[in-house]
Amino acid sequence: MSGTLVIAGLGPGDEGLVTPEVRAALDMATDIVGYIPYVARIAPRAGLTLHPSDNRVELDRARQALAMAAAGRRVVVVSSGDPGVFAMASAVFEALEAGPVEWRALEIRVLPGITAMLAAAAAAGAPLGHDFCAINLSDNLKPWALIEKRLRLAAEADFAMAFYNPRSASRPEGFARTLQVLREACDDARPVLFARAVSTAEQVLRIVPLTECRPEMADMRTLVIVGNSATRVIETPRGPILYTPRSA
Amino acid sequence: MSGTLVIAGLGPGDEGLVTPEVRAALDMATDIVGYIPYVARIAPRAGLTLHPSDNRVELDRARQALAMAAAGRRVVVVSSGDPGVFAMASAVFEALEAGPVEWRALEIRVLPGITAMLAAAAAAGAPLGHDFCAINLSDNLKPWALIEKRLRLAAEADFAMAFYNPRSASRPEGFARTLQVLREACDDARPVLFARAVSTAEQVLRIVPLTECRPEMADMRTLVIVGNSATRVIETPRGPILYTPRSA
Repeated sequence: MSGTLVIAGLGPGDEGLVTPEVRAALDMATDIVGYIPYVARIAPRAGLTLHPSDNRVELDRARQALAMAAAGRRVVVVSSGDPGVFAMASAVFEALEAGPVEWRALEIRVLPGITAMLAAAAAAGAPLGHDFCAINLSDNLKPWALIEKRLRLAAEADFAMAFYNPRSASRPEGFARTLQVLREACDDARPVLFARAVSTAEQVLRIVPLTECRPEMADMRTLVIVGNSATRVIETPRGPILYTPRSA
Repeated sequence: MSGTLVIAGLGPGDEGLVTPEVRAALDMATDIVGYIPYVARIAPRAGLTLHPSDNRVELDRARQALAMAAAGRRVVVVSSGDPGVFAMASAVFEALEAGPVEWRALEIRVLPGITAMLAAAAAAGAPLGHDFCAINLSDNLKPWALIEKRLRLAAEADFAMAFYNPRSASRPEGFARTLQVLREACDDARPVLFARAVSTAEQVLRIVPLTECRPEMADMRTLVIVGNSATRVIETPRGPILYTPRSA
């Protein structure tokens, strides 16, 4: 059993954000496993098999990757962003823990990537420049009550907040409720960043005061960052800069 | 005024984690500004001036960089990790906001990097696989009471937690108090990762139950990650894997 499993982060979209370490792993792979749009970022070549799969089959995909590695292949599971942040690394380890004990002898490596909140923050300034939290707003795998509890406590702690998966067609209500919780807990002028398709040709950034936020401003390609009570906007001829001071 | 200012993240140490975007900016620079050990990572070349400076002079360094860019230079301010996470980007924007209004016309870009918590999490498995927070434990710029409040609320929210700057020679007490707060709020077996000098040749990882954590396990080169209540350890022949399930 000399196969290997690498779980690699492709960053948010721009090829200039793919680390050399990840590039080298992709160049050595025999098999690439992942969600369809992420596998589509990998150029086909002789000796490489692509295994794209649909959304919401993360555990199946993880088992497939582990089984191929156990059969001696050099498998790379690709995630957008960083594989350890709301992505495939946890799914692979869930499958590993529940799977055949032989799988635990495999060489498994996680290669970090630029996660969406870091790319979005950089594009807008430095809104995550001091203490912050990251919350997945999808309630597919956890109860909404837990999300709401975390939102209230994060606001009380005065963390800046980054929201992943804020709103999808199948969950249109959650983000509206999120905005309601924030309005109860935060000042009206609190700046909110909507960063859509960050680092790609379609990137759109909007900075909006909390009172003017509407649920439709977010979709599944949007990363939302809410400033803390000290987060500021600097107006410049090139557009607004959003940042959180180091003393916040 | 055609100078430019780039604030770039060098990642945690491994050159394989420096993005191509950052590498290109370094190759185009006329001046590199930053803390001594980070500037030491940049190879000297003709046409490039290195401006290393000491710790705790972040605002002076930021003003120096802005002034050089305003004088027409192509300046890169380097940070370890990601420049937007407890690093130079916020200092530059503080200096920009307080400085001459002409500076606001400058082209300023922030280039993200692999921040220490992502590299540490990847090296250990996927402990930040679900909702988490990042807290700077240094009380140089904020009161200790605010740090302690955030720790208590983060534990109540059941966030995994990443701690930057956990302990220095000038602040030996803070991390001991942090462990005390966590012991009051979390179960005894809660796994804690001490990741020292992550991604470098001197990297050391330790996973320790909360009750066995001692303040001396951390120093300024250590990134500490505390699991949430669902974080698990998988024992394997290659060592323990720490991960947080996606439903946590």
